[in-house]
Amino acid sequence: MKRIESDSNPSVKQWKKLLTKKEREKTGTFLIEGPHLVEEALSYNADIHHLIIEENFQIPGSWDKGRIPVWQVTEKIMKSLSETEKPQGVMAVCGMADSDSVVFAPGKKFVLIDGVQDPGNLGTIIRTADSAGVDAVILGEGTVDVYNGKVMRSAQGSVFHLPVVKMDLKEAVEGCKNNGITLYATSLKEASDMREASPNHGFALLVGNEGSGVKEEWLKAADEKLIIPIFGKAESLNVAVATGILLYELQRTRK
Amino acid sequence: MKRIESDSNPSVKQWKKLLTKKEREKTGTFLIEGPHLVEEALSYNADIHHLIIEENFQIPGSWDKGRIPVWQVTEKIMKSLSETEKPQGVMAVCGMADSDSVVFAPGKKFVLIDGVQDPGNLGTIIRTADSAGVDAVILGEGTVDVYNGKVMRSAQGSVFHLPVVKMDLKEAVEGCKNNGITLYATSLKEASDMREASPNHGFALLVGNEGSGVKEEWLKAADEKLIIPIFGKAESLNVAVATGILLYELQRTRK
Repeated sequence: MKRIESDSNPSVKQWKKLLTKKEREKTGTFLIEGPHLVEEALSYNADIHHLIIEENFQIPGSWDKGRIPVWQVTEKIMKSLSETEKPQGVMAVCGMADSDSVVFAPGKKFVLIDGVQDPGNLGTIIRTADSAGVDAVILGEGTVDVYNGKVMRSAQGSVFHLPVVKMDLKEAVEGCKNNGITLYATSLKEASDMREASPNHGFALLVGNEGSGVKEEWLKAADEKLIIPIFGKAESLNVAVATGILLYELQRTRK
Repeated sequence: MKRIESDSNPSVKQWKKLLTKKEREKTGTFLIEGPHLVEEALSYNADIHHLIIEENFQIPGSWDKGRIPVWQVTEKIMKSLSETEKPQGVMAVCGMADSDSVVFAPGKKFVLIDGVQDPGNLGTIIRTADSAGVDAVILGEGTVDVYNGKVMRSAQGSVFHLPVVKMDLKEAVEGCKNNGITLYATSLKEASDMREASPNHGFALLVGNEGSGVKEEWLKAADEKLIIPIFGKAESLNVAVATGILLYELQRTRK
């Protein structure tokens, strides 16, 4: 275990840069924070480059950290790396998932995301997709960076449970079509009531931006547009809530 | 229309105080922000005390503001009152809803909240309850203040569509029992799969704190504990997403 006391140490400077999307994309690495996320990353064999711990943090005996290098830092350095008000003593630098990890095949289930902007919404969608047994989450262009700290925290480890990858939606749509996977898009207009949907064993659900929804181009590519019935006076549902309702409905009604 | 240019004006000072829960509770009033929320408040006849507009904001002709007094303020004052990065030119001071507005009666649908802490989660639950046609949302002790600006923004006007009131959960539970309304509580332990639930025409759904869930006391009071099946590797769902899935499931399966 190596110890760092100066915040001008080059490693510390490099880790701080990972708080920006630009540096994350350049290096293909990202930071996660807190014992729960680090434990999930370890348990699911994520590509962990280093652990970073605060001086008084005890690594739990149950963690199998193998040969992953550990850096010990001061409380002040940990604070400077953390995006939360109360840092929890442990972080990790991880390598990003590869889009090769997504395989389109008959019977599989996907969530496709077109331009969701709020990090909390994206994280919650990933967690929800995981709960609903989805095989992979595809992030189309214009979607907020999944390696943003707030996305990671909201996703609560689900990014380590299933592939969550950036991909051209065109490629994802073709992957679905070529494998008989029914592609549903959420839409408030010219859409069928979700309760009438009858997916094949596999399905893909395409959800869109908080304000403008799924882009016309992808609505046209969908096999069917679905709407969640509104029984009250709200105009629409939050995108993460809508994803949850639809995934469990499709799960329920598939042949 | 009266105009205020000085931020030491007593009205401005009073409005600023409404950014604290203490002052909101003392006065029974709260601030809302942005044209969408103000329009919803006007459309649903909320108790609006004043409108506050920035000097270059044009009140849309479609707004029926009746005799509500309007104060015009400088851009600087508006910024000092706003909790958002980009103030949208209009705010309103409103009076809080009364718990008398909740009526327990056979066939009605309720959401009961036990200690939800995140303002975004509470706002999203209210929006979701509105979408699902719930009759009222009951806020038990320990739940984040509904008049917090972030709750209001996440609820997107739904607080004006249905009663959302603080109430002792004991009273709410009794209201349900006395009217034959099936009370379901969410729980990860000793719970039935939600797909087996078969509510009466009326039902109440009790959801709990993000970390600790529904308190033991209320779990015992419930007619049935429900769990959403997890098909993947996530441990649980976000509370607002879970509320959405359960409300639409109960809506679907009720007799």
